[in-house]
Amino acid sequence: MNITNLTSNLKNVVNNESTSMTQFSWLHRGIVEIFPQPTDADSESLEKRLQTTNRPLRIKLGIDPTGSDIHLGHSIPVRKLRGFQDAGHTAVLIIGDFTARIGDPTGKSEVRRQLTEAEVAQNAQTYLDQVRPILDFDTPGRLEVRYNSEWLSGLDLGKVVELLSTMTVGQMLAKEGFAERYKKENPIFLHEFLYPLMQGYDSVAVEADVELGGTDQKFNLAVGRDLQRHFGQKPQFGLLLPILIGTDGVQKMSKSLGNYIGLSEHPAQKYQKLQGVPDNQLEQYFELLTDLPLDKLPENPRDRQTLLAWEVVRQYHGEQAANEAKEAAKTGGKEGALPEFSLAGVSQFPAKLAYILGASGLCKSTGEGRRKIQEGGVRLDGDRITDVDTTFQQPSELQGRVLQVGKNKFVRLVP
Amino acid sequence: MNITNLTSNLKNVVNNESTSMTQFSWLHRGIVEIFPQPTDADSESLEKRLQTTNRPLRIKLGIDPTGSDIHLGHSIPVRKLRGFQDAGHTAVLIIGDFTARIGDPTGKSEVRRQLTEAEVAQNAQTYLDQVRPILDFDTPGRLEVRYNSEWLSGLDLGKVVELLSTMTVGQMLAKEGFAERYKKENPIFLHEFLYPLMQGYDSVAVEADVELGGTDQKFNLAVGRDLQRHFGQKPQFGLLLPILIGTDGVQKMSKSLGNYIGLSEHPAQKYQKLQGVPDNQLEQYFELLTDLPLDKLPENPRDRQTLLAWEVVRQYHGEQAANEAKEAAKTGGKEGALPEFSLAGVSQFPAKLAYILGASGLCKSTGEGRRKIQEGGVRLDGDRITDVDTTFQQPSELQGRVLQVGKNKFVRLVP
Repeated sequence: MNITNLTSNLKNVVNNESTSMTQFSWLHRGIVEIFPQPTDADSESLEKRLQTTNRPLRIKLGIDPTGSDIHLGHSIPVRKLRGFQDAGHTAVLIIGDFTARIGDPTGKSEVRRQLTEAEVAQNAQTYLDQVRPILDFDTPGRLEVRYNSEWLSGLDLGKVVELLSTMTVGQMLAKEGFAERYKKENPIFLHEFLYPLMQGYDSVAVEADVELGGTDQKFNLAVGRDLQRHFGQKPQFGLLLPILIGTDGVQKMSKSLGNYIGLSEHPAQKYQKLQGVPDNQLEQYFELLTDLPLDKLPENPRDRQTLLAWEVVRQYHGEQAANEAKEAAKTGGKEGALPEFSLAGVSQFPAKLAYILGASGLCKSTGEGRRKIQEGGVRLDGDRITDVDTTFQQPSELQGRVLQVGKNKFVRLVP
Repeated sequence: MNITNLTSNLKNVVNNESTSMTQFSWLHRGIVEIFPQPTDADSESLEKRLQTTNRPLRIKLGIDPTGSDIHLGHSIPVRKLRGFQDAGHTAVLIIGDFTARIGDPTGKSEVRRQLTEAEVAQNAQTYLDQVRPILDFDTPGRLEVRYNSEWLSGLDLGKVVELLSTMTVGQMLAKEGFAERYKKENPIFLHEFLYPLMQGYDSVAVEADVELGGTDQKFNLAVGRDLQRHFGQKPQFGLLLPILIGTDGVQKMSKSLGNYIGLSEHPAQKYQKLQGVPDNQLEQYFELLTDLPLDKLPENPRDRQTLLAWEVVRQYHGEQAANEAKEAAKTGGKEGALPEFSLAGVSQFPAKLAYILGASGLCKSTGEGRRKIQEGGVRLDGDRITDVDTTFQQPSELQGRVLQVGKNKFVRLVP
């Protein structure tokens, strides 16, 4: 199959995808579980609620704004949210700013650093920018973005006591994570018990009909159900989604493991990384990251990889960028499509990042480079750099890496 | 020893008590423990803080306003508080109105019924009326009465998270009471973990130097220390007091066990009950309920009982009432000193309590009887009756009991 034919096929597949679906095939695609399932006692199913409710359902997805850059693994529930939007329902994105503002009061968790209001706002904005290609931001009534400080910051002690009173210590200690830590006598601080209840109370506050989450979120989604029942609401359905395996084909996609594809990466970078996804992961990637019908994928693994890379890049950057990335990968090999900057142009090392930004032409000057870093607009291999004094000792620390300012300015650093 | 000599001796003893004490004998009398004790690491003792602090210390006692009538057992920490007042310090009585207003949100505890603001206010007032003879209410700067809703009702979720973060699940489950329940798999609701922290936060709010409590309060007093340290305060000392054995000489004094002597009981009732305290409890009663020097008590058990009864009645009702109660007990036997009302004067049974109040002359009419019940001013054997429809089926339910309106009107109901 040559490239022209493949591209043409892709377009047909993309255009015809909806015709090959039954009414709820979008709902069931790539999910692990919907709970609760209908029982004799309660025969309602999510499908039934979707069909019989005389208003758009409210579909909750909680966002942790302690990080900012997200990857394809994070996109999975967001893509499912889009499915609900397209079926006429309301996506309710909840930015967990309240918890992020508190941080971890014990100071023991580096992950839960206390963030300022400005940091939270910036992270939330970066998140929204990154999911903009996935979600429907424009159709009225299809998207609500809520900050949970709206209802949590005003919660008084009486209400907190009420929340806590809905669960026993035994129930909480049965939660995955707590159980092992308690058994191993690793300290569990009391406030950790409050977090699932705060997340659950978010469901009450937004009157969620459905909450999306990874398989590790089942307990928290169930707490949301309990609290809704406690406060006289119809409990939400939980929809659990799988965890994406990273580009190494082995471990969960994660920034710290380096096996990720960031949503803010350059199309050519995305394309290149996607072409490297191992054969045995291709089907999962198609299922979770595209809407393409799985029974019509090319037989040839090489063609599959190309199709996957093209289709994912298309989603985030459009058809033209996908074609360019494909061309670049074909003609220029791995390094194509990105302008290059030779580190020989850096007069001396150690060198400050702000200076390199000016020297490379990404910024007009070292001063602008500093400002861009301070504003959070600078990334190295997709990781945001916020320390204006970031300094590199020698060129080898930077060779082959991609330096980025804002959404559209990239250079690959070469010797 | 005849009565005149005894009374005269009593007066001498009472007047001379202070001369027989060393500087801190009042502090150590009848206590179980002061903690922490000075160690190599921290050599401060409570005595040292008392001597070296250049201001009155703040001595905290927490009051649960869910009940109203209190007995001699409850008087023990209040008497100790008076000791601190007399040494120039400030008694800080904390009315736990916040918790009482919340009640038990699970609805499972009958003890923790949710009280209205008016009920809490009435209970607090009744409490203060009853301890008025013990505490110094008049010297400026010696008494502060605080309601903990002052600081707890405004506590936001961020602060609650901070409070919870100071303790681990393991530490909380080690607490007496929780440990057994957890082991037996009896449910412990999460909000129960918050109560010791709320009580501890009271110490922070009032900047307590010392907290008084029964031996069962050691954990809670220690939580107060931890929280004060967390919030940058010098931690309080805990002063633990014993639990009073009831008039049966066996079990802890308790209303439900019927082995109590209520502070609002008639002097003659108190006197009679105190005369019945078993010999083996007399020393503890003298130590905890009087300031009399223990090495100068009469040898004869009968004289000791008389002395105890006279001295306790004197504390609450004055010398004249104590003498009258003693005379009545001598001449009229057990039933003396109280006016009697014959239940033959009740025209028919079943009879409403409001009617009996009018018939007995305690109230002017059935209507006033109803009002007095509604106002919380009516007691039967010291127990407040608040249901205006309280009805008795036959005279035997009332015979021998003492009916009371306000502080000073009593009748004993006789056949």
